[in-house]
Amino acid sequence: MTGTVYLVGAGPGAADLLTLRAARLLGEADIVFHDALVPAAILVLAARAEKVAVGKRSGRHSTAQRFINKQLADAAGKYAVVVRLKGGDPMLFGRAHEELSYLRARGVRVEVVPGVTAALAAAAEMGVSLTRRGAARSVTFVTPRQGAGEAPNHWLRAVLAADTAVLYMGAGDAAAISAALIAAGKPAHTPVAVAASVSLPEARTAYGTLAEMAQLVGRVGGAPALMLIGEIYGRALDKAVQPERCAIG
Amino acid sequence: MTGTVYLVGAGPGAADLLTLRAARLLGEADIVFHDALVPAAILVLAARAEKVAVGKRSGRHSTAQRFINKQLADAAGKYAVVVRLKGGDPMLFGRAHEELSYLRARGVRVEVVPGVTAALAAAAEMGVSLTRRGAARSVTFVTPRQGAGEAPNHWLRAVLAADTAVLYMGAGDAAAISAALIAAGKPAHTPVAVAASVSLPEARTAYGTLAEMAQLVGRVGGAPALMLIGEIYGRALDKAVQPERCAIG
Repeated sequence: MTGTVYLVGAGPGAADLLTLRAARLLGEADIVFHDALVPAAILVLAARAEKVAVGKRSGRHSTAQRFINKQLADAAGKYAVVVRLKGGDPMLFGRAHEELSYLRARGVRVEVVPGVTAALAAAAEMGVSLTRRGAARSVTFVTPRQGAGEAPNHWLRAVLAADTAVLYMGAGDAAAISAALIAAGKPAHTPVAVAASVSLPEARTAYGTLAEMAQLVGRVGGAPALMLIGEIYGRALDKAVQPERCAIG
Repeated sequence: MTGTVYLVGAGPGAADLLTLRAARLLGEADIVFHDALVPAAILVLAARAEKVAVGKRSGRHSTAQRFINKQLADAAGKYAVVVRLKGGDPMLFGRAHEELSYLRARGVRVEVVPGVTAALAAAAEMGVSLTRRGAARSVTFVTPRQGAGEAPNHWLRAVLAADTAVLYMGAGDAAAISAALIAAGKPAHTPVAVAASVSLPEARTAYGTLAEMAQLVGRVGGAPALMLIGEIYGRALDKAVQPERCAIG
């Protein structure tokens, strides 16, 4: 093996929210394996690289992941600079663990390049801090998708205990998620924001309450979208900071 | 007012972990107000800007914050591009809320540029995902510092409920924090990692248990340091991925 595999965060979507290191590695890459959702404006930075889309199809996760792992190891045998480009940050819901584990077990050199995760870009765009002195001292990032062998609704506990919660990869199940949270004791009137296409020109955000979460997802155009839950999204807390509720659609 | 104030995330420390947007804005800036901890290798990108360090001294937070707010508003009256450069990401424990609120109330145009937060860079450096299918579906970022009017130990709840917890700005009180968590029911043998100078050449990481957390902080050279708590930092979970326990100091 002569090559190095770089697991690189592509950031939230806007090309200029890549890190300098990520942009440099894309420019040097011989081959780039990228998530299907990484925008063309980012891929164009990998000018000399072969580009391979490795988007996972739902319901076929593990097969696809094993195939990606093998492709990465094979590429490291042929190329000096192999980039695995993942939306957001690789170490947060990015399944980097499987790839790291597989590659290291085969003696392939791997480095991880962190990226701007969507929740931080959404907070920047909305102008609402995820944490705020006196209102939110903790923020939880969680995915409500249930994995094999996991207790159902394990994720609920973390959302209930945090001042602010950001739900990744759950917008398709917004109605069930909102119902489960309300049944578990989260007040139906808890303020919520839903953000889609974060950092891109077509970015859309909608504000409302936990009870309305599924409608809010609909108003921003459906999944994928981030769902952000917490008092900091309420108007009452600070009119100067809270953006106007959008009239979308 | 003619200028725009950009609240910009400087990332975890390494200059090439700035975003392309942050680097461009530093190059265009007329004046940069920066946290005391932002490295010189980043400030040098603001070639034509006046640089003003606005590090807060402990115990004088609110006075200092009010002064920073006023400096930013005054600068926006004189300069086109005013950058407020903050370590990590501005919307996560960055006190951006106070600055946004103050500037908007005065009609100053403000934009926020997200950054790579230290927890993600630490995860990249350690090669240990913050989330992992089947082991960690939620990660909580929390600061154990108590604000005025806040219930004592409010932060404990969020840490107890999360699969992985990252504690910002708490390493100076590591002994008390570890004791409080154990008293609240978190097992003393819960795996812990402590990371200092994340992403810089002098980066140091130590692994151990919750009961040993204060010693681990000592082993990486003391505060500031991130404290990361969760089963994913245990060796047993995956020997292939977990790095060697460092022999530091």
